[in-house]
Amino acid sequence: MEEEPSAPTSKKGAKKAEAKAKKEALKAQRAAELAAATAAVAAASLEDDPAKDNYGNRPTTAGAFGPDAEDVEIRALDDSYIGKTVVVRAWLQKSRIQSAKIGFVELRKGGNWDIQGVIVASDEAPVVSRRMVKWVTSINPESFVAVEAKVKQPLEPVKSCRVSGLELHITKCFVLAAAPAMLGMTLGTASQPIVNFSDDSAQAGEADAAKVAEAATETTTAPAASMLTHLDNIAMHKRAPVQQAIADIRIEVKRLFRSYLEARHFKEFEPPCLIGAASEGGANVFRLPYFGEEAFLAQSPQFYKQFEIAGGRERVFSISPVFRAENSNTPRHMTEFTGLDLEMEIKDSYTEVLSVLEGVLLFIFRGIQERCANEIETVRSVYYSEPLLLPEPGKEVRLTFAEAQKLLREEGPPEFANVRDDEDMSTPQEKALGEVVRTKYKTDFYVIDKFPETARPFYAKVDDSGATVGDGVRVTNAYDFFIRGQEVLSGGQRIHDPVELEARIRAKGVDPTSPGIKEYLAAFQQVGVPPHGGGGIGLDRVVAWFLALPSVHLAAYYPRTPKRLSP
Amino acid sequence: MEEEPSAPTSKKGAKKAEAKAKKEALKAQRAAELAAATAAVAAASLEDDPAKDNYGNRPTTAGAFGPDAEDVEIRALDDSYIGKTVVVRAWLQKSRIQSAKIGFVELRKGGNWDIQGVIVASDEAPVVSRRMVKWVTSINPESFVAVEAKVKQPLEPVKSCRVSGLELHITKCFVLAAAPAMLGMTLGTASQPIVNFSDDSAQAGEADAAKVAEAATETTTAPAASMLTHLDNIAMHKRAPVQQAIADIRIEVKRLFRSYLEARHFKEFEPPCLIGAASEGGANVFRLPYFGEEAFLAQSPQFYKQFEIAGGRERVFSISPVFRAENSNTPRHMTEFTGLDLEMEIKDSYTEVLSVLEGVLLFIFRGIQERCANEIETVRSVYYSEPLLLPEPGKEVRLTFAEAQKLLREEGPPEFANVRDDEDMSTPQEKALGEVVRTKYKTDFYVIDKFPETARPFYAKVDDSGATVGDGVRVTNAYDFFIRGQEVLSGGQRIHDPVELEARIRAKGVDPTSPGIKEYLAAFQQVGVPPHGGGGIGLDRVVAWFLALPSVHLAAYYPRTPKRLSP
Repeated sequence: MEEEPSAPTSKKGAKKAEAKAKKEALKAQRAAELAAATAAVAAASLEDDPAKDNYGNRPTTAGAFGPDAEDVEIRALDDSYIGKTVVVRAWLQKSRIQSAKIGFVELRKGGNWDIQGVIVASDEAPVVSRRMVKWVTSINPESFVAVEAKVKQPLEPVKSCRVSGLELHITKCFVLAAAPAMLGMTLGTASQPIVNFSDDSAQAGEADAAKVAEAATETTTAPAASMLTHLDNIAMHKRAPVQQAIADIRIEVKRLFRSYLEARHFKEFEPPCLIGAASEGGANVFRLPYFGEEAFLAQSPQFYKQFEIAGGRERVFSISPVFRAENSNTPRHMTEFTGLDLEMEIKDSYTEVLSVLEGVLLFIFRGIQERCANEIETVRSVYYSEPLLLPEPGKEVRLTFAEAQKLLREEGPPEFANVRDDEDMSTPQEKALGEVVRTKYKTDFYVIDKFPETARPFYAKVDDSGATVGDGVRVTNAYDFFIRGQEVLSGGQRIHDPVELEARIRAKGVDPTSPGIKEYLAAFQQVGVPPHGGGGIGLDRVVAWFLALPSVHLAAYYPRTPKRLSP
Repeated sequence: MEEEPSAPTSKKGAKKAEAKAKKEALKAQRAAELAAATAAVAAASLEDDPAKDNYGNRPTTAGAFGPDAEDVEIRALDDSYIGKTVVVRAWLQKSRIQSAKIGFVELRKGGNWDIQGVIVASDEAPVVSRRMVKWVTSINPESFVAVEAKVKQPLEPVKSCRVSGLELHITKCFVLAAAPAMLGMTLGTASQPIVNFSDDSAQAGEADAAKVAEAATETTTAPAASMLTHLDNIAMHKRAPVQQAIADIRIEVKRLFRSYLEARHFKEFEPPCLIGAASEGGANVFRLPYFGEEAFLAQSPQFYKQFEIAGGRERVFSISPVFRAENSNTPRHMTEFTGLDLEMEIKDSYTEVLSVLEGVLLFIFRGIQERCANEIETVRSVYYSEPLLLPEPGKEVRLTFAEAQKLLREEGPPEFANVRDDEDMSTPQEKALGEVVRTKYKTDFYVIDKFPETARPFYAKVDDSGATVGDGVRVTNAYDFFIRGQEVLSGGQRIHDPVELEARIRAKGVDPTSPGIKEYLAAFQQVGVPPHGGGGIGLDRVVAWFLALPSVHLAAYYPRTPKRLSP
């Protein structure tokens, strides 16, 4: 007689037990399916099938294909291949059997290059048995396969595939890596917009369940899932064309940043992550034990960029991780992100730096609009957004901080009718200003220059003209750059005179002899350091806001948040 | 009456007091000198000097020069500039006054581009006063200046400068950033080979003192200094042409790595630094508090490269910081360094990966030999080394581990006559093998393949042929690459089958359900992952050992050691 399970002591307990049981059942089911699939394959290959050497599971393709079959990527296929025999390695994303003699599959590679494969039973060489047709169309979706096929023109274009003008008539098919029968997340789900970015598993779970229920009422749409589900199924998350496109755009942003600067004699360097003092403001810094002492994780490469300038490197840039120990669980924050930073000698004016920064960002934006048109379209098909409005060349918008505040007072929403010229902007103010600027200047990209001293760190150089705003607050040669009302870059001229620097450090209430600050100041006292300035761009934010993604986490490869460090 | 200083209570105390007094005196002296220099300048500019607008201290050069004077970098100067008036911004590295009317300076920029400047008193416009000649030749070395000058051909080539066929006849000279009269380290000292790499300040101090004493007996040579002194004077350390050359070579290595791989469809990605589990061996990993939990710093991007492959990215590379909490105070170790990593799908054989890695390293070595000939010469003039011997194309040396051990037994030094084929090599063995290979094959670059299972991590794929070495230990599809007998790259094929992977994890005594490992294994269980392999190159080591530098610390921008995190 079977033992009754002990009664759960609470509702929560019951739910938990139920969830556990469900999970176990699912696990068992998957194991059984996998075993069945494996057994079927084993049986198939043992059988006296005339096509038995043409399909099955294999650990490698060495020796599997004819010497004349060209190994080709799906993205490289064009009409010149018609009639040729090729080998294609790809993910099998879909399959269906039409009759005992004919089946169809969809093969995908290179992000979102897909093509239709056809398999037709044939007694003539190359032999394709009915058993082989059945086996190929039974391969679990997302398995990695290698096929030998003849390239043909389909009777009519295959609408469901990107390579619509060609199809592959499969004569051999091997599974190199089998996916389980039940995926933790299907490609359909991975390709839906993410419904919830919370790191709270209860919240995320509810969102997932709601979407599954909703999808159940429709027949064609896969249910959407939460970010947690996506990250728990990291490979499927990455395989979705939308994530491939975001990753490709991110790569292009870095490439454009680097090429623009290298063409202008900037030299790359690598600032350290481990530092000996929490020099730029002690809050929000990660600390760690370090051989009996304490170390910190860099919050920015600021001091190191300036050391490079002091060291005679003239113009430098870095692409490096930076860290913030901020307990902010929002779609705008991460604890680790990538900084694109530059610093350069100034000849006559700090606007030389501003022009380089404006130039590099416009080069990036125009460059991805041009080079990544397909990727942008793929992203927009999932996360819809208006194209980023850029200014006509020569009509870039540069406002002073005071002008920006005036604009906000006069043309912004009523709650900002009293914003001051000597106080930093809040995030809602920035967003509202973005709307005003878009309406007035027809651009989503603009610069706000001459920030008041109160809103900038101690190394910001004050405008030598002595100009002030509000209650006599001096303005600095420092600026922020915005897209869609959100800051993507912060920069300005730095103080290079050690006496001026020490005075400003003291004025900001910082002890110039404190660890980190002392060494920073020393670099300026030890040698003459030329006038210089620079800026820092948040790579993740540039990607996310260019595409108007719902969360900066989508732009990162492995988003780090206060609650999540895995995978 | 002056009070007598209290008698020191110990010999150590006396020494300490003496050192302190010396330091204070030096500080006072520097301050006095700086004040005197500033006062002199102030007096000069106040005086009724007909040339008074043509020299002095200035915060910026805005409006300082004629509109026709072209702003030009020293490296860009050539004969086409003869007779033209130019503006040059540079470090003043040397000066001397020949008579009351004539003085000479040396200006340096762009690492090691230097040129001679001449200043001659003249009553005719542009007016140069004797006072101006004196002032210009009194500028403290390493100050940053901007001069207006006519480009002329010198009477005979200026041997002491790289631009020997031109000189600048200075008519205006402004100091934009003054160096102190007494530098913590002169350019001459910064350009000497470093004498001691210890982080122990007593040891380094002794080495410094010995070299100062030694140099005092010669008149032309600047004393060498310890690494600690260099790092305490970071700007001067970086300004030395030898360090500029090393930095430029490092940049080129990264550029060559990237361009070789991008041409072969590799895509860059960024692995995280912060990770949730010490997955690759718990020793030597930095731990930090993370919002009530614990985080770790990545020791390698291994798992993340593989997640990218699982995620359908096909071929990936990363250039990223990695961390080792190893308390090793040697010239071979750092706690933070830069990894050049790649991972790729395999079609038929793991040797596809080996060929890409061999290709990229040879491309890097040949590329820097070709593109950085000047920089290599600069480095060799300070740290002498034999050029790296590379194999002829098509004659690359690939030995199996067993072949390498046999070679060492038979042709190496007697102490290695009994090395085994199933045990990992030690560092002295590797070095000795490097000598044997150089003699036998005339190359400093070679591959050792088919390492025994015992010497590789759990993810290394065992050779499917079942081959064994020694006491029946299986060999793996894994290899190390060496230059000058030192390992610069480690790589191989990875296990992509989840069942095989789990078995190997267990066999290595690791719990497959432990944090980090569980998520790693899951990526293979959740989806089919194609056969793949890759490798990791230590950027710092490649640079250091290519140049045969005495320490890897010299190849880093800001070397991190157990005892040093500053600057």
